Amino acid sequence: MLRNELTKADIVARYLPKKLIAVDQAEAFAPSNIALCKYWGKRQNELNLPVNSSLSVSLAHLGSHTQIRPATSGEDQVILNGQVLTADTPFAAKVISFVNLFRGQQNYPLIVDTRNNIPTAAGLASSASGFAALTLALNQYFQLALPDTVLSAFARMGSGSASRSVFTGFVEWRMGQQEDGMDSHAFPLDVSWPDLRVGLVKVSSAQKAVDSRAGMKRTVETSGLYQSWPAQAARDLETIHQALIDDDFSQLGATAEHNAMSMHATMIASWPPLLYWQAESVAAMQRVWALREAGVEVYFTMDAGPNLKLLFKAKDQLLLETEFPDLEVVAPFAEDSKTNLASESVNAAD
Amino acid sequence: MLRNELTKADIVARYLPKKLIAVDQAEAFAPSNIALCKYWGKRQNELNLPVNSSLSVSLAHLGSHTQIRPATSGEDQVILNGQVLTADTPFAAKVISFVNLFRGQQNYPLIVDTRNNIPTAAGLASSASGFAALTLALNQYFQLALPDTVLSAFARMGSGSASRSVFTGFVEWRMGQQEDGMDSHAFPLDVSWPDLRVGLVKVSSAQKAVDSRAGMKRTVETSGLYQSWPAQAARDLETIHQALIDDDFSQLGATAEHNAMSMHATMIASWPPLLYWQAESVAAMQRVWALREAGVEVYFTMDAGPNLKLLFKAKDQLLLETEFPDLEVVAPFAEDSKTNLASESVNAAD
Repeated sequence: MLRNELTKADIVARYLPKKLIAVDQAEAFAPSNIALCKYWGKRQNELNLPVNSSLSVSLAHLGSHTQIRPATSGEDQVILNGQVLTADTPFAAKVISFVNLFRGQQNYPLIVDTRNNIPTAAGLASSASGFAALTLALNQYFQLALPDTVLSAFARMGSGSASRSVFTGFVEWRMGQQEDGMDSHAFPLDVSWPDLRVGLVKVSSAQKAVDSRAGMKRTVETSGLYQSWPAQAARDLETIHQALIDDDFSQLGATAEHNAMSMHATMIASWPPLLYWQAESVAAMQRVWALREAGVEVYFTMDAGPNLKLLFKAKDQLLLETEFPDLEVVAPFAEDSKTNLASESVNAAD
Repeated sequence: MLRNELTKADIVARYLPKKLIAVDQAEAFAPSNIALCKYWGKRQNELNLPVNSSLSVSLAHLGSHTQIRPATSGEDQVILNGQVLTADTPFAAKVISFVNLFRGQQNYPLIVDTRNNIPTAAGLASSASGFAALTLALNQYFQLALPDTVLSAFARMGSGSASRSVFTGFVEWRMGQQEDGMDSHAFPLDVSWPDLRVGLVKVSSAQKAVDSRAGMKRTVETSGLYQSWPAQAARDLETIHQALIDDDFSQLGATAEHNAMSMHATMIASWPPLLYWQAESVAAMQRVWALREAGVEVYFTMDAGPNLKLLFKAKDQLLLETEFPDLEVVAPFAEDSKTNLASESVNAAD
């Protein structure tokens, strides 16, 4: 951290009352999200401020449920999918240091109990939904009643893409320009595509060798092609905007695939090469391209991992389930769940 | 072609006598070459003028033998690996139109007999060695006694990378800047690395769906990351120069691999995505990286196809032949064959 650089704690403190008052228990859900225009590269590390704006679709019911309650033992406790973690595991340490941003020196020992219902093999990161759910739960627990955009900015300080998981449906995260990052938050787009389907193709559930944070860093520092990325991402974001306005699925799918491939290209041009693909990833891509060649409107996107996420329309679901037998299909707008999680998350104590 | 743009024929004519005189028969050999800093993208299509300079190593005895003799039938004949081709096959058409650059309207019906000794499965393009050997044979056949650099520039008009196949050993092709392209030719570098080995890994010998010419075009026109390529290639060329001066194999290998991956990255970021890799290509890359992780100094490069070309030192040959059972190993400097093919190619009639 540079001298005089704002810390997360400085920023959060501005939005909080001097003295916190907690309810008995709070609970929130936040969905996973799949970026159609990717976040890749930070302009500032401490606050997770991105080099480019991004756009995602949230995965409806797939995500993280987080409950917060007082730790009567006086010691913080982090529970993940029913398992109590010791404080020195990376996950527990991250959760506790995020909670500390809110409670500061005040004596609020907490139990943070998180359950992810993301299919473990699907290669979906849980940090986005996890930090979003935690932020929403803390907002309830300490009765902060913060605006959605502030909650999104806070979630972003936990994990960049968590800023988008605060909302459902299509979500845009504007990169912002302020030093404190408070204009770098997501907002929901007023578009609903009930026919859209996202298909999760499992290639491998192995732990990735290089995590996204380290991957971004290596790309920014060593990839000669990375300097063209911000302009590419800006163009793709505009094209996806237009596709949403025009209700043009092909344009959206093609741009999302091109954007994902461009992001992976920046990694492949890193040194040492950063290749998240497995042999099976290439085989799956080739199947998608062959299907498209045959007239099926299917596109894919990929994150910092080997798995493909297919984008297609409801009418092609059966065909794609035949082609990809283990496909896990999500309907992001099935119940037209264009709701505001921040305002509607449950405060169990109310 | 734009109006007023120079044609190949205009340019060649400048270097030729008004009236050609032929010998009875001429024969030349030119080696394949593997670029360590790749040629990817044309700034001018008619003359194959490149966007960036490149650097290669020639593959010693692997390449094309081309013999030219008069066609007593009065009809041109093109023979490839012993098979007579009809004039309308793409290969024959290209050869004849190249020969026409030299003989113009003069009546010299020819038999062009080419034999490639490149292992067919190794995924080596034969157009580089083919056009280089043809240029050298024509130089002999018509007793042109052209300087090597002119022959290299002529070969470039047949196929860009043929400019480098006119020479053995390490070869640099400077992009040049003249409109007629006559400063866009290769020259040999005065460095010999007898310990260097190139290992050809066969992944697939299937015909590629998109040829290099079309692939370059798509990349230049649709890849948002391509704009960063020329600067990357320029940096890599400088680094490889320095590695040659410092006798630094690791630097050479690492830069060649980084350069190849960067080139493929520009393709992957094209639309539709241009992926020359097969699933097996990724598996082979992962084997190389695992070997390097284990301390073996091996690097790879790849061209517009699915096959890997390994770079390693003589001492590791046995180990690599065990790891890659079908490896075809070439010693580019084994007989320290730093010769000038242009001057030494056989003129059977002399």
